Amino acid sequence: MIDITDRVCNKALRDRIVTAEEAAEFITPGMNVGTSGFTPSGYPKAVPLALAERMKKTPFKINLWTGASVGPELDGALAQVNGIGFRMPYQTNKDIRNSINRGDIDYCDLHLSESAQLARYGYMHGNKIDVAIIEACFIDEQGHIFPTTSMGNSASYVKTADVVIVEVNTTQPVELCGMHDVFVPEDPPYRQPLGVVAPDTRIGKPYIECPLSKIKYIVPCDIPDHTRPLGAIDDDAKAMSKHFVEFLKQEVAEGRMPKNLLPLQSGVGNVANAVISGLKDSDFEHMTVYTEVIQDGMFDLFDAGKLDFASGTSLSPSPEGQKRFYSNLDAYVPKLLLRPEEISNSPEVARRIGVIAMNTAIECDIYGNVNSTRINGSRLMNGIGGSGDFARGGALSVFFSVSTAKDGALSSIVPMVSHVDHIPQDVDVICTEQGLADLRGLSAKQRALEIIDKCVHPDYKPLLLDYFKRAVAATKNADTPHILEEALSWHVRAMKTGSMKK
Amino acid sequence: MIDITDRVCNKALRDRIVTAEEAAEFITPGMNVGTSGFTPSGYPKAVPLALAERMKKTPFKINLWTGASVGPELDGALAQVNGIGFRMPYQTNKDIRNSINRGDIDYCDLHLSESAQLARYGYMHGNKIDVAIIEACFIDEQGHIFPTTSMGNSASYVKTADVVIVEVNTTQPVELCGMHDVFVPEDPPYRQPLGVVAPDTRIGKPYIECPLSKIKYIVPCDIPDHTRPLGAIDDDAKAMSKHFVEFLKQEVAEGRMPKNLLPLQSGVGNVANAVISGLKDSDFEHMTVYTEVIQDGMFDLFDAGKLDFASGTSLSPSPEGQKRFYSNLDAYVPKLLLRPEEISNSPEVARRIGVIAMNTAIECDIYGNVNSTRINGSRLMNGIGGSGDFARGGALSVFFSVSTAKDGALSSIVPMVSHVDHIPQDVDVICTEQGLADLRGLSAKQRALEIIDKCVHPDYKPLLLDYFKRAVAATKNADTPHILEEALSWHVRAMKTGSMKK
Repeated sequence: MIDITDRVCNKALRDRIVTAEEAAEFITPGMNVGTSGFTPSGYPKAVPLALAERMKKTPFKINLWTGASVGPELDGALAQVNGIGFRMPYQTNKDIRNSINRGDIDYCDLHLSESAQLARYGYMHGNKIDVAIIEACFIDEQGHIFPTTSMGNSASYVKTADVVIVEVNTTQPVELCGMHDVFVPEDPPYRQPLGVVAPDTRIGKPYIECPLSKIKYIVPCDIPDHTRPLGAIDDDAKAMSKHFVEFLKQEVAEGRMPKNLLPLQSGVGNVANAVISGLKDSDFEHMTVYTEVIQDGMFDLFDAGKLDFASGTSLSPSPEGQKRFYSNLDAYVPKLLLRPEEISNSPEVARRIGVIAMNTAIECDIYGNVNSTRINGSRLMNGIGGSGDFARGGALSVFFSVSTAKDGALSSIVPMVSHVDHIPQDVDVICTEQGLADLRGLSAKQRALEIIDKCVHPDYKPLLLDYFKRAVAATKNADTPHILEEALSWHVRAMKTGSMKK
Repeated sequence: MIDITDRVCNKALRDRIVTAEEAAEFITPGMNVGTSGFTPSGYPKAVPLALAERMKKTPFKINLWTGASVGPELDGALAQVNGIGFRMPYQTNKDIRNSINRGDIDYCDLHLSESAQLARYGYMHGNKIDVAIIEACFIDEQGHIFPTTSMGNSASYVKTADVVIVEVNTTQPVELCGMHDVFVPEDPPYRQPLGVVAPDTRIGKPYIECPLSKIKYIVPCDIPDHTRPLGAIDDDAKAMSKHFVEFLKQEVAEGRMPKNLLPLQSGVGNVANAVISGLKDSDFEHMTVYTEVIQDGMFDLFDAGKLDFASGTSLSPSPEGQKRFYSNLDAYVPKLLLRPEEISNSPEVARRIGVIAMNTAIECDIYGNVNSTRINGSRLMNGIGGSGDFARGGALSVFFSVSTAKDGALSSIVPMVSHVDHIPQDVDVICTEQGLADLRGLSAKQRALEIIDKCVHPDYKPLLLDYFKRAVAATKNADTPHILEEALSWHVRAMKTGSMKK
């Protein structure tokens, strides 16, 4: 067993150090298990792997509550042995997704900002978490738990759990201590204002507090976060980034945005990278970030001297980014803060500080509704995640999507989306590689014309304009004209023929 | 002209008293006109009527920004002369609605909590309000403006307008002074936490501040608020109220809700009245209200000693309720507070204090999506109003709907809603006269079974179950099974045959 005595300073807790297998024995069928982790960062690894091994011999299921998506040692390993009965609040793992889409897992897709409070309120399966499994890099003499590369829902799960298991991960540097701001709000009617007024505001403590009596096991772990490589920035992403940076310049020029912009929130992936990269090459300075996930691009912005501070709930770099971060902790840690996702994604804070919310769409419709989660209205991709928290709360909400998919066989702008995650009230701007539609202050029909004009691929423009005009005629110019027989026909056609084109 | 000198104490302003006709002359084509008013309460009456008269002779259009719906002297009179080019953020007037649904008015349907800030941010048509027309009951020696029966967006419109016209309404008692808590938040990045921690928290001043130089005209008015009679509480509404009050009792019994409940928010109308009436007859005591619109039912709760305090942005009683209120000002005013709708509907406050959000649906689907606004996806009824502010922010969000409409020819629960205002993440409970579906913590398919079991009318249960089962089969048990060819076929059938039944 790895020696973690220098990472566990509390003497009583040292006596509770056991193997992952021993700790996993505590978990029994049907338990509600709450874990740390948000993106493949800071999630427990050794105990879930041991649990999956146990489930291989004796199949059973648990209910798994995490921060968001987690790494393969947790979601993947347990899904592969069909060990998850219920899962919340978000996922991106292929095995989990397939299990959900064949009915093996009951998935509850939640606004991430709400997941901890719904657990505390007793609104989720039963009233409590049976056991919380939390990754830490250090436990001090008082038994305070110092988190690692994500905060997620750890603090609330520890607070509400009957029993806590801590995985002390020796691959996580102790220099992470101090990078967290742990705060669990009281529940109504006793909740007070969250004091965050800027990305660097601290309102809590750098550690998770837990009665020592609740900590049953400490488990050593030396498996690193399963970071994922970044995709290259393609021409479409570059084009979107260019449109959006131009738009931001215009907003500043017209006095609707401060010179250093408002705090940036960005989703995960290629487009987010492209936009951050576009901002790096822009004239904007003293920018700040208030987001979920801090990624490589933010390090680029720091190094370019453009970014003053970044607040998130997870640090999720690529393998190269991880090396860069670990070898420059002194430079990066003081400019970073990881908060519980209840705070990082708080609509209260997002609206107060006025984030620029940048998220991606699977498809949009001509009236500005956005589908972020379900293919053909049915098959789950990932989940709504934090997009709803930021899109509704933010000062400016933009959704990005390449205008076509499958080599042009599908249009990302359709007459009616097959599933709605975001309503037009929460979508200020839609941006594709074709252009940017500014929807603020427009009526539904004005939005349709703006989206068709600016965002739609030329192959689909005449088709959408034709639908729109016929819908206007059929409804005698109603507020939001639709021909319901036809509204979803593009999806139906694509399911049958592989293409949305006539 | 009515003498209002005792209502206008500032001497400089007394010199600016003019007739409504004279003030209306100031308004020119294409102006952005921001008014007071929320429901048929506290809106300007004399100037709009004079403006409509002018438009009859010389047709032109203005852009009308209000608090929400307003009375017929404003929305109705201007729509009848085709005098509105653009309208935000909400309406309920038949003439306006018809104009919107035939393309005569561009309507921007907004979350009410956002409407003032979007105006301040310069996100709406052009950057500013040309003229604000505000109803007041009193102007003190310093020129402070005391609002009447609603707050709406008055304070923000006064702040951003170039020119202000005040209608001093002599039918509004001066005893209303003190019932308001006027606070306009700073905009990002300078916004601070809203200090409201309970329905009775005050964070502002009892009057609207405005530089005297901006106040161009003071106009006397003696037209009372155009209050509307309440409908009788029918058996369906009683049944819904009974289901929901039982549910609340259970929540208290299981420790998920304090004994005096959390602050109540309720929409407007028959169902809201029934629920409030049901609460009056319950054992709950020391309740509080944090809502948009304070209605007759709240007076009943006060009189029954069940309600401690009610905060809203509008006081919108029936004609009988108005008499009751005006003749008992001493008793009611100290227990009431009217706030700007940015505060009454603040998602920040709604989540902090944890409101019980009670709103109505036009239709729901089997997965818990709610359509509150558009018939057959196209024709606007009213608008999203505050339902999105409260449903997402609240601690508990319930949507009410009678299970059928048009004498049973339409089911209010359908395979897929034809328009989405509220996504399942924001819908905890659906309640019809048939029963109550508790959707918290359920997967999409579990939600479908719960809704079909509890809420659907027996005539439609087999049809919906059949759709659901075939959708499960067709999608191989996907997360949210739909058959897109059929999902909207109930609406199509009803449009063709008048009935959703096969």
